[in-house]
Amino acid sequence: MDMSLKVSWGDVAEAHERIRAHARRTPVLDSATVNALTGARVFFKCENFQRMGAFKFRGAYNALSRLSPQAQERGVVAFSSGNHAQAVALAGRMLGIPRVIVMPQDAPRVKLEATRGYGAQVVTYGPGENREETARRIAGERGLSVIPPFNHPHIVAGQGTAAKELLEETGPLDVLLVPCGGGGLLTGCAVAAKHLAPGIQVIGVEPQAGDDATRSFWTKTLQSVKAPQTIADGARTESMGDVTFPLMLQYVDEMMTASDADLLKTMFFLWERMKFICEPTGALGAAALLQRRLEPARIAGKRVGVVISGGNVDLAWAATQLRSG
Amino acid sequence: MDMSLKVSWGDVAEAHERIRAHARRTPVLDSATVNALTGARVFFKCENFQRMGAFKFRGAYNALSRLSPQAQERGVVAFSSGNHAQAVALAGRMLGIPRVIVMPQDAPRVKLEATRGYGAQVVTYGPGENREETARRIAGERGLSVIPPFNHPHIVAGQGTAAKELLEETGPLDVLLVPCGGGGLLTGCAVAAKHLAPGIQVIGVEPQAGDDATRSFWTKTLQSVKAPQTIADGARTESMGDVTFPLMLQYVDEMMTASDADLLKTMFFLWERMKFICEPTGALGAAALLQRRLEPARIAGKRVGVVISGGNVDLAWAATQLRSG
Repeated sequence: MDMSLKVSWGDVAEAHERIRAHARRTPVLDSATVNALTGARVFFKCENFQRMGAFKFRGAYNALSRLSPQAQERGVVAFSSGNHAQAVALAGRMLGIPRVIVMPQDAPRVKLEATRGYGAQVVTYGPGENREETARRIAGERGLSVIPPFNHPHIVAGQGTAAKELLEETGPLDVLLVPCGGGGLLTGCAVAAKHLAPGIQVIGVEPQAGDDATRSFWTKTLQSVKAPQTIADGARTESMGDVTFPLMLQYVDEMMTASDADLLKTMFFLWERMKFICEPTGALGAAALLQRRLEPARIAGKRVGVVISGGNVDLAWAATQLRSG
Repeated sequence: MDMSLKVSWGDVAEAHERIRAHARRTPVLDSATVNALTGARVFFKCENFQRMGAFKFRGAYNALSRLSPQAQERGVVAFSSGNHAQAVALAGRMLGIPRVIVMPQDAPRVKLEATRGYGAQVVTYGPGENREETARRIAGERGLSVIPPFNHPHIVAGQGTAAKELLEETGPLDVLLVPCGGGGLLTGCAVAAKHLAPGIQVIGVEPQAGDDATRSFWTKTLQSVKAPQTIADGARTESMGDVTFPLMLQYVDEMMTASDADLLKTMFFLWERMKFICEPTGALGAAALLQRRLEPARIAGKRVGVVISGGNVDLAWAATQLRSG
């Protein structure tokens, strides 16, 4: 694996200039209850209020805007059943770029429709097929650029703008908690945070069932998990990539995990007390804080940032969880 | 009834100076989906993110801070089963004022506990008793000041700061939609809005089952509704008062109503699309806009403000509504 670092602070700053007028500058919220519970001063960067409901728009818009005019004219292809699909679909519409999204046949109808609603062409694949291969085949046939969900410098730099905005608003923080799937958001935010607040501790949080990044971090060797079963559907990636893994080793101070039960508890706590909807994946960073994965003594009196990554959750499913919980 | 106007722009501006450092400046959110659906440019002032989860904190803090030092030392009493109780409890704690809250015996345990959690003394009353009389008796016995839920100039002026903040952020608007119970939020916002944007149309929205303010508005005579049955529990007031009614006639351009079915539909739409939790009462203004009580042609191309008044809803109850809806 090429272990060079492919994203710098300059890349995040440049991404911010590109997306500033198009992405939403999401609010930073706090809560007296959370401060009292933790003994810290906690700031939530709410990417659930981002366009299409998740931070993914930042990276997608940045990556698409960096394509050459010729590549933009030919179009792009992305493979995702989740927020990345909608992010590429929406960013491409805003930039006038044709886009194909490869999604599983059995993706929730609401996600298929949302992606089509943004004017993207949806190509589905069956259980026997590999989505990345399907996407690369289509890209080859039609001359399209593949927009990967996390392992690309322009994607990572775009996601880092979330932490840039947070720290510009709060000033220096002592700790930053960021959800981790493939590591695009985590490493982008880490690059930005270490530049703006060199003393900050950046902690990535991933689902217990999909702890590949955590094991990769501690072993310093890229690990993977086959098809992790977790309600954090935005963090079901099997492993990091050659862009995000070296960045994690360089800029992230610690990794921890959260169980599905902790994610549910945290998600509903945030709904009830902070009055915002977040999805299970979006609650990863907050779960480490609120379910005491992070030792209370470590954060007492500290200034803590928490990135809430997204809010695209099926309300009917959530209602079932609430009633059975 | 004394029909003089008891709240002016100056009162709202003064209230803002008093509460600015203590109330939260709540975010103003927008949504491409809502803009596309309505053909307008819509701004939501999100008082669901206010301290204790509703705009009520603004008026309570203002009113309490205006009491004389002697009255502050003796303490206050408020009667409410809802957000006003928690607002007085919290504002009083911040100002070091002893407070008694009169609540029904059968109030939801969570509300009783939340109010006690803010350090207030809770006095309950039985089905045969009148809460206002109970409060006045306690006030007389102990020399406490009664803090009414809406019909007081300092309460109204405090609530008006929500519209002041909204318009300071968005610039002039063409239409402003505000939930209406006893009219404290509505008239305070109307006073502020008409000063900051003289051409604005201020529209109050109340629950269909409790349409006293709407009928009072159109008949220019104070009307009342006995114990209105609506899920909008923050707007179950039976009639406006001598402070709010004349202000409504002077500053509000129109009143309309929303059914419980429309409120539920709107509430879940806001949860799902805008990613924030609001309570049924909080969705009144949005319901007029989104369920087309307001003629689409009237708002096409316009700049529309919507006040979301609060977010204190029982998630378990909401889950039941979602599943039966």
